[in-house]
Amino acid sequence: MSSPIKSSPAPLASRDNRWLKLFRMALRGGLPTESGSVGVEGVRLVEEALSSGCKIEAVLFSESGQRHHAKLAPFIDRPELAFPVLTTSDRLFEGVADTEHPQGIAALVVPRPAQLEDLFAVPAHKCSPLIVVLAGVQDPGNVGTIVRTAVAFGATGAVTSATGQSGTANPFSPKALRSSAGAALHLPLVHGAALGILLAQFKLNNISTIATCAHDDTAQSLAAPWEIDWCQPIALLVGNEGAGLPEDIVHSADARIQIPMERRVESLNAAAAAAVLFYEAFRQRRGK
Amino acid sequence: MSSPIKSSPAPLASRDNRWLKLFRMALRGGLPTESGSVGVEGVRLVEEALSSGCKIEAVLFSESGQRHHAKLAPFIDRPELAFPVLTTSDRLFEGVADTEHPQGIAALVVPRPAQLEDLFAVPAHKCSPLIVVLAGVQDPGNVGTIVRTAVAFGATGAVTSATGQSGTANPFSPKALRSSAGAALHLPLVHGAALGILLAQFKLNNISTIATCAHDDTAQSLAAPWEIDWCQPIALLVGNEGAGLPEDIVHSADARIQIPMERRVESLNAAAAAAVLFYEAFRQRRGK
Repeated sequence: MSSPIKSSPAPLASRDNRWLKLFRMALRGGLPTESGSVGVEGVRLVEEALSSGCKIEAVLFSESGQRHHAKLAPFIDRPELAFPVLTTSDRLFEGVADTEHPQGIAALVVPRPAQLEDLFAVPAHKCSPLIVVLAGVQDPGNVGTIVRTAVAFGATGAVTSATGQSGTANPFSPKALRSSAGAALHLPLVHGAALGILLAQFKLNNISTIATCAHDDTAQSLAAPWEIDWCQPIALLVGNEGAGLPEDIVHSADARIQIPMERRVESLNAAAAAAVLFYEAFRQRRGK
Repeated sequence: MSSPIKSSPAPLASRDNRWLKLFRMALRGGLPTESGSVGVEGVRLVEEALSSGCKIEAVLFSESGQRHHAKLAPFIDRPELAFPVLTTSDRLFEGVADTEHPQGIAALVVPRPAQLEDLFAVPAHKCSPLIVVLAGVQDPGNVGTIVRTAVAFGATGAVTSATGQSGTANPFSPKALRSSAGAALHLPLVHGAALGILLAQFKLNNISTIATCAHDDTAQSLAAPWEIDWCQPIALLVGNEGAGLPEDIVHSADARIQIPMERRVESLNAAAAAAVLFYEAFRQRRGK
């Protein structure tokens, strides 16, 4: 789908323009385009997309967004690149953007295509797979933040999965991508795996499944984060914000984990809990 | 200021009623009353206030809020208690509440009065003081979340302090109390200490000061969280969301700390960073 046009000589001037329609659907609509690309907007996110190694379908500047051109020039002003760099008016840009005060810069990017098998391989320079499984995490902001924290602390892959009770927000939706600060583009991520198949695959591939439990309502013993050997291949299962993981998943996981506290004021929020667990994994993997 | 009235026989019916004015000032205005009490609303927060051991000035139900009476009865239906339990109409309650859809239950509570000296003592059953110092944390939500995380992982005290660049949000404001889930009522908290005097007092009392650094812009060496001995008496300094701690404070602290990451996607948010640091302190203090 990449176009031979290197950059639009004239600004796109009609809201019915094919490119503007694609950007509108991806950004405002939050839907992937036919070619599977998703929309990102804002200088930082577009920069993350351009530096992620993912395929870029197009870049769009508004007139006032052109002031960010210099910052992105190393990524876009290269003759060997095959995607169009387009411009449009501020007014038309506002019509496709999903944010209230758009920065006037957006891109269509094709997330790294990933298969489950990609997650099981031992990545170069990593001790073993560390996979985050989002099972029924409904809020796109939480999905993004958890992915960002996971990537920050060295996760090697991510999977999203629906549970009987709830789906998981699309990590490539504009809101989730904003919350992940583009981190979802930086690791193999499989969106929408069946939880049962997933668990079976983890077992087959000798990857230990760890269920996170916010409440004490399981009869099985709960390990503290430091009681887990995070250097082994691990898939950490994170459940719904309110209901947690389905009981049968908690039951069939290889271990159950709870963050111990001096005083349970209220459970930590999703971002804080994920940060603690991935920090512990990172600490152990660093041999500390 | 506690009134001899045990509960209002008739609902408070005028918005000019002295109690409704006090609740309005505390909840909507976010200001302490003359007697130093602050406003909390919602079932969970009022329950935290009632169970905190802090002095209660009054409890207020709306008519529809009365449905929560049974849950709070153990705390309020006791003859020895000297505070009034008041009722008013839903409409008048909405006029004093700070939330959009009030639950119809609020209280005025006097936070635990604390002096700096209270923070330096070794608390019973704790290995040594673990104090969080909020220096220029502007967002009330962040202040509340950091206090909540600190309390969850066993902090023994908290101080807020302004820096040359910014003040710290009042931890007893309605928004901060909501974010802290009432945790600010559960530990000695000094609001508004002078940072210079504070650091001098820590030194005099053999409490190590640890400056948190989000960025690498200090010439001094940065320790990883696991390189700090958290079992010693510690004051953890947390700075402004954007600017961090003032340079001279970072320089004069006993140690500087940074959370290492595999990949700096973007710095962790304040809640996540605080969770990681207090978790590490908790882990070490548990001997793990």
